[in-house]
Amino acid sequence: MRLEPGATIGILGGGQLGRMLAQAANRLGFDVHVFTPEQGSPAERVSANTVIADYDDLDAVRAFARVCDVVTYEFENVPVETARAAASVSSLCPGVAALEVAQDRLTEKTFIRDKGARTVGFVQVDTLSDLEDGLLELASPAILKTRRLGYDGKGQVKIEEADQAEAAFEAIKGAPAILEGFASFKRELSIIAARSVEGDIRPFALAENKHEGGILRVSHAPAEVDNTTRDDALRIATALLEALDYVGVLAVELFQLDDGSLVVNEIAPRVHNSGHWTQDGCHCDQFEQHVRAIAGWPLGDTIAHSSIEMVNLIGDDVKDWPRWLNRPEAALHLYGKTEIREGRKMGHVNVVKR
Amino acid sequence: MRLEPGATIGILGGGQLGRMLAQAANRLGFDVHVFTPEQGSPAERVSANTVIADYDDLDAVRAFARVCDVVTYEFENVPVETARAAASVSSLCPGVAALEVAQDRLTEKTFIRDKGARTVGFVQVDTLSDLEDGLLELASPAILKTRRLGYDGKGQVKIEEADQAEAAFEAIKGAPAILEGFASFKRELSIIAARSVEGDIRPFALAENKHEGGILRVSHAPAEVDNTTRDDALRIATALLEALDYVGVLAVELFQLDDGSLVVNEIAPRVHNSGHWTQDGCHCDQFEQHVRAIAGWPLGDTIAHSSIEMVNLIGDDVKDWPRWLNRPEAALHLYGKTEIREGRKMGHVNVVKR
Repeated sequence: MRLEPGATIGILGGGQLGRMLAQAANRLGFDVHVFTPEQGSPAERVSANTVIADYDDLDAVRAFARVCDVVTYEFENVPVETARAAASVSSLCPGVAALEVAQDRLTEKTFIRDKGARTVGFVQVDTLSDLEDGLLELASPAILKTRRLGYDGKGQVKIEEADQAEAAFEAIKGAPAILEGFASFKRELSIIAARSVEGDIRPFALAENKHEGGILRVSHAPAEVDNTTRDDALRIATALLEALDYVGVLAVELFQLDDGSLVVNEIAPRVHNSGHWTQDGCHCDQFEQHVRAIAGWPLGDTIAHSSIEMVNLIGDDVKDWPRWLNRPEAALHLYGKTEIREGRKMGHVNVVKR
Repeated sequence: MRLEPGATIGILGGGQLGRMLAQAANRLGFDVHVFTPEQGSPAERVSANTVIADYDDLDAVRAFARVCDVVTYEFENVPVETARAAASVSSLCPGVAALEVAQDRLTEKTFIRDKGARTVGFVQVDTLSDLEDGLLELASPAILKTRRLGYDGKGQVKIEEADQAEAAFEAIKGAPAILEGFASFKRELSIIAARSVEGDIRPFALAENKHEGGILRVSHAPAEVDNTTRDDALRIATALLEALDYVGVLAVELFQLDDGSLVVNEIAPRVHNSGHWTQDGCHCDQFEQHVRAIAGWPLGDTIAHSSIEMVNLIGDDVKDWPRWLNRPEAALHLYGKTEIREGRKMGHVNVVKR
C-alpha cells in the first residue's frame, strides 16, 4: 500500500489535532475528508470535505470511509465500533487494536507491563471492596480513575487516606475503575515515535512536559536527557509500536524517577500535544510524519534544527495572542475555535530558543 | 485596523500561492474565503469557503468581499476592476495601485525608474515603426514583450537581428508592447520583503534563482551576497514598498551585472515562487508574513535558520515525488493539482543544506 499524491485521507475527529493533520496532508498534496459530529470544527475549516454525523451512525461512517484511501483518527476515544466500521471498508491506520488498548486504562497498563515496560502499581477496581483492598496493597496516596473516557485529568479522584475510599468510589459512580499508586517522579517526559508500513521506526527527541490541573502546560524539547534515558525511551516505544503492529505516530508519556529510570504513564495512539514543538523544531513534524506513515510513505527526518519551548494557550490564555505575536522568536498556532471555554485548548506557541 | 483571530481573509485566486497563503492563515487561526473561476482549485481544498465565479462578475466579487475582513490576491493579473469592486466594500491589501503597476510592463519599468532603481533599457512599442526605432536605440538582441498578461515567459519574442522586427510584431499580434534591451548579467537574484500597516519593513534573505525556458527552476537561499548587494536590494525594495504605500509581501526580481550592480527585472505584488524556501528556512515564512501584514499584525522574524535549495516540480517532474521523499533533507510541497500539464507548477521541494 502506497498512496499517490491526490489520494484522500480520512480523519475521524475534527479537533485541533485533526486540523494540524489535515494541514500536513494538504502540504503533501493529499485531499482531506473529515468525519465529526461537530459543526464548524477546527479540522473542517481546512479540509476539502467533511461529513457531520454521530460516531454511532455506522452507515455514515462506512460511506465516509469508502471514499477515503486511508482513515486515521485524531483522538483515542473514537468508539471501537466506529473504527471497526471504517476498517471494514477502508484501510485504518493505526488499527483498532491500538484504540482498544488506549481506551481502557487497565488494558493499557497491563499491555505496557506485558511488553516489558514499567508502570506505576495498579489494581483493578470493580467494587468498593476491590478499592479498599487496593489501597492496602498500593498504600495512600493513590488515584482512582475510571477505566474509560478519561483525559486531561477528568474522571480521576485522588485518595489521600484510606477512609476516603467510599466517597471516591461514589465520585466515579461505581464505574469500572483502576486504582493507581503514586510515582514519586522528578519530571515528566514523553517520546513520540512513528512506525512505517515497512516497520521502520523513527523517534523524535524527547520532550520534557509540565502539567497543571491535569492539562499539559509547557513542553521543552529536545529535553536534556542522558543517553541511557534516550535509549530506554526508544526501547519502550519500539516494543509498544511493534507489539501493536502499529502504523503512524504514537506518543508515550513517561515519568522519570529519582534514580533516572522511566515508568510509562500512558500512551496515546495519535499525534500528541507534547509533539507540537516539532512544527517549528524539525523539518518533518509529527503531523507530516503521521501522514507519511499512514500513506505508506517513507518516514521523514526527525532531527531537531531548533530547541523549542511549546506553551499551550488554554482558555483565556489565547487572549494573549498580541503579546506572543510581538515576540520574534515565537510561532503562534491557533486552532480556529470560536468559543473560549475554561480548560479548552485554543492554540499553542512554539518559542524558539536560539 | 487589526484583525482578531477568527476573522475571515479573502483570497482572489485559487492557485498554489492562494493555497499556501490559506494554510498560513489557517495556522494563525483565520478562516479563509477563496474567490476563483476554477472548480476544485488548490486553494479551495484547504479553505473554509469558496466562491466560484468569473472575475468580471462584479456582483459576486462584492458579495464575496463583503463577508471578508480583508481581501488579498495571489496573482497580479486579477483584473483591476475586480480589485476595485473588492476594495469598494472591504479592505484590499495590497491595494489597487500595486496591481496597476505590475500588470503593465511599461508602467512597471517606468515606475521602478522613477523610484530610483535601475532597469534594462526599454522603449514603448505601439507600432512596427516604434519597434524598428527601438531596435536602433537599444541594439539587438532585444526582447519584445506584450505590456500585459505575460508570465513564465509567455507573450515574449526574442529579436536577434533587426530584420526580425516585422515577424516579432506579428507574433504578438500588434498588442501594446515594450521592447527591452538585454542585460548581460551574471546571475538572477530576488528579494522578498514585507511592509506592515504601520510601515515597518522586513526583508528575507536574498535568493539566487535559475530559470529555464522562462520558468523558475531552482532558488538557493540565503544567496551568497556581499553587504553592498544586500543593502542595495533592500534599498530598492524599500523605495518601491513605500512608493506604493504597500501592505503585504512584495517580490523584486533582480539581475546582478558583472560589476555587481543590481538591475530590477520585474516586481510581483504578492508572495513569490522564489520565496518558497522560507517555508523550511525561516520560522515565519513569506505566507505567514503576508498574512500578518494584511491582518494589521506585527511582522514576524525573517532570520534564516537553514540554508535551502528550492527545486520546482514542473509538469512531469512531479512524478519524481518518491525519490524526493526518500531524501531526509528534502521537504516536499505538493499543490493538489490533479492534471499534469507541461510547464505547470505541480509542487516544489525545499532541500535543507546542513
